[in-house]
Amino acid sequence: MILENRPQGVVAGSIPLFAGHPSHELLPIAGVQRAVEAIWRGGGVTRLFDYGDEQGNAQLIEFLVERLNRVESLGLRRENLMIIGGSTCGVDMICDQLTRAGDVVLVDAPSYRDALHIFRDHHLEIRDIDIDESGVMVEEMERMLRALAAQGRAPKFYYVVPNFQNPTGITLPEPRRRAIIKLSRRYGFAIVEDDVYNDIRFGDDLPPSFYALADGENVLRLGSFSKTLAPGLRMGWLIASAGRVAGFVGSGLLTMGGGANPFTAAITAEYCRSGAWETHLQWLRGQYQQRRDIALAALDAAMPAEVSFTRPAGGYFIWLRLPPSVRVDELAERAKQENLYFAPGAGFFVNPADGARHLRLSFSFLPLTDLRGGIEILGRLVREMSA
Amino acid sequence: MILENRPQGVVAGSIPLFAGHPSHELLPIAGVQRAVEAIWRGGGVTRLFDYGDEQGNAQLIEFLVERLNRVESLGLRRENLMIIGGSTCGVDMICDQLTRAGDVVLVDAPSYRDALHIFRDHHLEIRDIDIDESGVMVEEMERMLRALAAQGRAPKFYYVVPNFQNPTGITLPEPRRRAIIKLSRRYGFAIVEDDVYNDIRFGDDLPPSFYALADGENVLRLGSFSKTLAPGLRMGWLIASAGRVAGFVGSGLLTMGGGANPFTAAITAEYCRSGAWETHLQWLRGQYQQRRDIALAALDAAMPAEVSFTRPAGGYFIWLRLPPSVRVDELAERAKQENLYFAPGAGFFVNPADGARHLRLSFSFLPLTDLRGGIEILGRLVREMSA
Repeated sequence: MILENRPQGVVAGSIPLFAGHPSHELLPIAGVQRAVEAIWRGGGVTRLFDYGDEQGNAQLIEFLVERLNRVESLGLRRENLMIIGGSTCGVDMICDQLTRAGDVVLVDAPSYRDALHIFRDHHLEIRDIDIDESGVMVEEMERMLRALAAQGRAPKFYYVVPNFQNPTGITLPEPRRRAIIKLSRRYGFAIVEDDVYNDIRFGDDLPPSFYALADGENVLRLGSFSKTLAPGLRMGWLIASAGRVAGFVGSGLLTMGGGANPFTAAITAEYCRSGAWETHLQWLRGQYQQRRDIALAALDAAMPAEVSFTRPAGGYFIWLRLPPSVRVDELAERAKQENLYFAPGAGFFVNPADGARHLRLSFSFLPLTDLRGGIEILGRLVREMSA
Repeated sequence: MILENRPQGVVAGSIPLFAGHPSHELLPIAGVQRAVEAIWRGGGVTRLFDYGDEQGNAQLIEFLVERLNRVESLGLRRENLMIIGGSTCGVDMICDQLTRAGDVVLVDAPSYRDALHIFRDHHLEIRDIDIDESGVMVEEMERMLRALAAQGRAPKFYYVVPNFQNPTGITLPEPRRRAIIKLSRRYGFAIVEDDVYNDIRFGDDLPPSFYALADGENVLRLGSFSKTLAPGLRMGWLIASAGRVAGFVGSGLLTMGGGANPFTAAITAEYCRSGAWETHLQWLRGQYQQRRDIALAALDAAMPAEVSFTRPAGGYFIWLRLPPSVRVDELAERAKQENLYFAPGAGFFVNPADGARHLRLSFSFLPLTDLRGGIEILGRLVREMSA
């Protein structure tokens, strides 16, 4: 396999089972090209070149509000949604606006590694809460909140990837979401719902979002085109109360630079409004489901019974738990000798030692043969080490 | 005049003398279109669609390093430069990395309004230092530094637009730059050099940059394509020590989202490497010089002798000082009735009252007739009010 544009740290010819990128085979390059041509044909291209509205491309806002209201029966108004440069910018902006150095935030254990990195960059005190097979354990969260309250402290927000979580692939069930909203009201913290995998679902409907269940109260929900269109466009959205959105829109960051990239926002808007995104999504779900199926079948065949792993109903990731006899760092070392790379569990925990028996595989990026072949190699290594 | 894409707050049919946007007439739309077509013809477009390197588009880095080294006789290596989403992202990133809430930063009085906004968003304590007709007064800066030191404090950085400053159009002479570097070493603060107007110069060479004069030590220099290509692409660059650049590149913000917009970065790189940018710059300087000349001639003709104003040798802005009899807020109110808008001085100072007799005009955005006509109206109003 030759990677024209390899994710960071990928050695040419290697099998990067860690890469949480969309597969290059699944990028709708021709469709985006058609959108670009349509814009140029249609005239009015000046708006791609000037500073944009702080809230983002108006047509894209309108499209997303209409779609989310229709698909999820929400009651969003355009004041509730703004365009951002991918969910990354949203997480960073939320930290800037909602926190100061030393504030506490809550996350799952494990949680999305790069979000933890952003929280550390903001000098936040990150407390992680254990999960079980259904996601974060609410009683553990409550215990944490009581312990904090006893010190006169409260978290600023709880950060969660509610659907097909990164790194576990787990979707948090509705009753837990409702229970967490109750806690958020009692203890006064916001919920940051990083919902970038929402549209990569393979089966039934998802539970209602935190945003929907809380009637939008104190929930900031992030969405992204990175997983369902192309990361290179750097486009996503943030949904929150009109007051919160107005606060972000009125920040110096947006006043100075204008809204999220006007050039790629206009292209994204054109692509979506033409109907191409919806068609692409339908196809994409089948493609990722096939990859998930291949990965799970390969894991079933290759892994010894002592290895457990999640069976995600969407998203990009599978989370493995190794037997006590297999150390992840040793497995990573042996895998490297076979030109195979995965994401060790350590990076997804506040305390790296908590991830000593886990690893994350991604089925999103690799061609099917590499996905299957990579898991076969991994299974062989685990068997050798646990023998 | 009909504005297809009006800067925020501009009423249709009005004359926005405040708008610090590049003129729509001067956007190289056809040239960018050619760059897009060349990329598509050339193949290898996948890189526009995937996450990009944290440091930014490698070709654009290479182009800028080579050009800056050639034009300014610098000794940049590629580790000294990273691509950012416009200088805005640079200012925000610098605040995130170099400061914490409550830290002191120094700025000029007046200084760029939107940068002040970002500093306030980061809860920084902003101290502004008076300028004279050559820019910031070094002895005032030293007095401020001594006063801070007496309280056991030191600023984290001094923020300056060194060339054709926003809002005054003033270029800081080399001796003052050298003196400030000495102060920065003695008192241990960084210099943030927001040099976005560098390439919009009408005459002689500019003084060497702070970055050049300090051999890159503790200077962070920002550049931008917003003024010389198109703001909508959201492209700029940051120059700093290799260690500082590595720190930014390794931040959670860039690890999570990848480098600055890969799509528009690739287009910008193609546009620059084709030679189109250099050609455009030559032409652009003449265009903006003509606008500056028209604005100054109109001011000379329209304003009473008691109004003084700067005569910038580049950039976008002219700074006016009104006679004591004319209050800026009253002038703004009367101008509004004539459908004319300018930027009152208050927003450019830490203490708004310091700007009560000043205003900023921009000659970058308006068509020539509106520029001349707008200044004629303004002159008439000032004469009426000072009569």
